[in-house]
Amino acid sequence: MSSLPASDQRARHGLSDKLLQGDLLSADCPSREVLKHLTSRWGVLVLLALEQRTYRFLELKRQVGGVSERMLAQTLQWLQNDGLVHRRALEQVPPHVEYSLTPLGREAAVRVRELADWIEHSMPRIMAHWLGGSLPPA
Amino acid sequence: MSSLPASDQRARHGLSDKLLQGDLLSADCPSREVLKHLTSRWGVLVLLALEQRTYRFLELKRQVGGVSERMLAQTLQWLQNDGLVHRRALEQVPPHVEYSLTPLGREAAVRVRELADWIEHSMPRIMAHWLGGSLPPA
Repeated sequence: MSSLPASDQRARHGLSDKLLQGDLLSADCPSREVLKHLTSRWGVLVLLALEQRTYRFLELKRQVGGVSERMLAQTLQWLQNDGLVHRRALEQVPPHVEYSLTPLGREAAVRVRELADWIEHSMPRIMAHWLGGSLPPA
Repeated sequence: MSSLPASDQRARHGLSDKLLQGDLLSADCPSREVLKHLTSRWGVLVLLALEQRTYRFLELKRQVGGVSERMLAQTLQWLQNDGLVHRRALEQVPPHVEYSLTPLGREAAVRVRELADWIEHSMPRIMAHWLGGSLPPA
């Protein structure tokens, strides 16, 4: 995607559909930033967890094994800024904050889950390579 | 996936199909390592490029905008170790080394591309969130 300043109206109107899409192979395309969020270690796992259901912060931390509070907060902030995660604060005492996927986030989560499912199912074949094994190719 | 030592034959035979699969939400599952390789910034882009065709090292470096030789070599080594990328060295002068996807790598690349395509196509909606815009949800 072109990184033209938003003020450059003339050039923006001249962008083709192709340019309005991202181009991940281009070093300066903003889609690289979204790729970074979605494929960050914790981004993937947060999307997988939130695809199942809405979570409160500490519940989500327990669900995503190994994440620190700091990294979970950072990841949720990225995904909120990209419009993928919705943060809902209920006005009650003590405060209750919960996180869920937006419709856009649900679309992303489907793709992330398909990759994650493939990894989980393919682990025996991949580990055979780690061990120098000779399982037949699928 | 359980991280039992390979020597623990008794326990290994007791593993159910469920355990033979990876479990990405578990902090100590080896599938986390594969997730790291496949979703590393350069891992994604190398898979996208190699899904198109076989590349020599420097051609691939040009194709994947912004990658350094060091990071490209590291990424290719990860993907080779996981059995996803094949390195072919032709015995000629000067040396000719080329990289392609294995059948396993091709399976991974399909999932990675579906995620990448979604990101590229969704950039206008995501950027609307960055700009505080109010495009209607899809």
